Amino acid sequence: MKLTVAFQGELGAYSELAAREFFHADVEVAPKPVFEAVFRAVESGRCQRGIIPIENSLMGSIHQNYDLLLRHRLHIVGEIKLRIVHTLIVNPGVRLGDIRRIYSQPPALAQCEKFIKSLRGVEVIPAYDTAGAVRMIKEENIRDGAAIASAQAAADYSLKVLKSGIESDHRNYTRFLILSKKKAPRSSHAKTTVVFATRNVAGVLFKSLSVFALRDINLLKIESRPIQGRPWEYFFYLDFEGHADDSPCRKALDHLREIAASLRILGSYEKGREADGRVHKR
Amino acid sequence: MKLTVAFQGELGAYSELAAREFFHADVEVAPKPVFEAVFRAVESGRCQRGIIPIENSLMGSIHQNYDLLLRHRLHIVGEIKLRIVHTLIVNPGVRLGDIRRIYSQPPALAQCEKFIKSLRGVEVIPAYDTAGAVRMIKEENIRDGAAIASAQAAADYSLKVLKSGIESDHRNYTRFLILSKKKAPRSSHAKTTVVFATRNVAGVLFKSLSVFALRDINLLKIESRPIQGRPWEYFFYLDFEGHADDSPCRKALDHLREIAASLRILGSYEKGREADGRVHKR
Repeated sequence: MKLTVAFQGELGAYSELAAREFFHADVEVAPKPVFEAVFRAVESGRCQRGIIPIENSLMGSIHQNYDLLLRHRLHIVGEIKLRIVHTLIVNPGVRLGDIRRIYSQPPALAQCEKFIKSLRGVEVIPAYDTAGAVRMIKEENIRDGAAIASAQAAADYSLKVLKSGIESDHRNYTRFLILSKKKAPRSSHAKTTVVFATRNVAGVLFKSLSVFALRDINLLKIESRPIQGRPWEYFFYLDFEGHADDSPCRKALDHLREIAASLRILGSYEKGREADGRVHKR
Repeated sequence: MKLTVAFQGELGAYSELAAREFFHADVEVAPKPVFEAVFRAVESGRCQRGIIPIENSLMGSIHQNYDLLLRHRLHIVGEIKLRIVHTLIVNPGVRLGDIRRIYSQPPALAQCEKFIKSLRGVEVIPAYDTAGAVRMIKEENIRDGAAIASAQAAADYSLKVLKSGIESDHRNYTRFLILSKKKAPRSSHAKTTVVFATRNVAGVLFKSLSVFALRDINLLKIESRPIQGRPWEYFFYLDFEGHADDSPCRKALDHLREIAASLRILGSYEKGREADGRVHKR
């Protein structure tokens, strides 16, 4: 039986492309309206896996998903870095000169700012989802507008790709995390994500990071988020190289527990590869 | 002559309240449609100061403003922490039971989630600005809707505050930064904000923080943002105690320059007090 993977957005969304690359297309996908529904679908067992974007190389972290990782009790079991190639999608027969309005999700619109400016006098209209914008221009047969989304979304709705690779910076990747109720099997090229709160003492962040530096464990990312109800105090999310069960990492985490007010391991999982999204047949 | 202070939003926005608390009301204010316009107004000299929200104690950092601090060449010259008290504002005669729609900026709506849920069956409609939502319900004489904004906005538009303090968590503060073309005068209770990029070597963040820890300089905040065109590399923004011209801080920053690929001091300024927003007469 195929795994069912929950993702936020509509069919053809970048999250779906990332899921198909990660699982080599061999999955059922379950579109959800909001990120929290992805977490709930996995927690309830209705879906075996979830996929969420955590970071875009141009826009930064998707902080809402950091907060949801803390509120829910799932394990990160994998990651994939999807190259984001935006395409300009229109109804058949619509030409570049006809376009007066462009619909897409705000981050996609921001990533294509240079291209949109080159069109002059075009109105930008935010949509809740890239693939949803494509469906909308199809259903309403919009003849003076275009959507920005993946080539997959164009194929799914049998619309025309007028231009591909319209993002301002081609080194545009989104990193996605795979979520599951169970831990990942141990891997040799692992990374680990943890979240901790510090006690209110001097030099505490430095001391927290020292547990990794003293053991030559490489930090990959640090992200801070506010602690609700304790203004100007923060949770720190850390990504580091290695598996939480490896001896130096285990010792580092034991050491961090001595220093931190709280510590939770969100997952150890194989480091993700970079992938180009391909168009899949339905 | 009074200072002119640029802020994002309409009259009655929390940024305006923060400006009036910081400057003891003794300013002219210049509303701007977007944050970037605040930076440009100060750079061009049309306004002597700008004020921007940088962090909310419940929602976290306003990352766009971190990015704008890097893109523009202004100095941070002050800060203030404004207690955010949301009020439910209606046209005269409208009662709680009449309300079917609530208008406000998405962060304000999120901060009042519990109260909004208690009303049942009320539709939530995002607006670009809290005070703008108040103006809109006034201008369109909406009888089945309410806006969430400051008491100042209600006073400005002569509307009625139906309920005050409707935020889910009363420890709700927004920290604002004051921007100027010139550095702040030296102060004895100073903090400093810097931004740096690291070289790609092991333990580099730990080494960067060590320059402060070795000199007992207290870190107040760390924030990471992606470097455009260099996926998975980051700028780090640091707030620490002390003035960049104080001897230990100067040495720490010299030391950090040895380690970092780039370093810029965004400002040394007096630590901000907490303030309650008051209603001012126009």
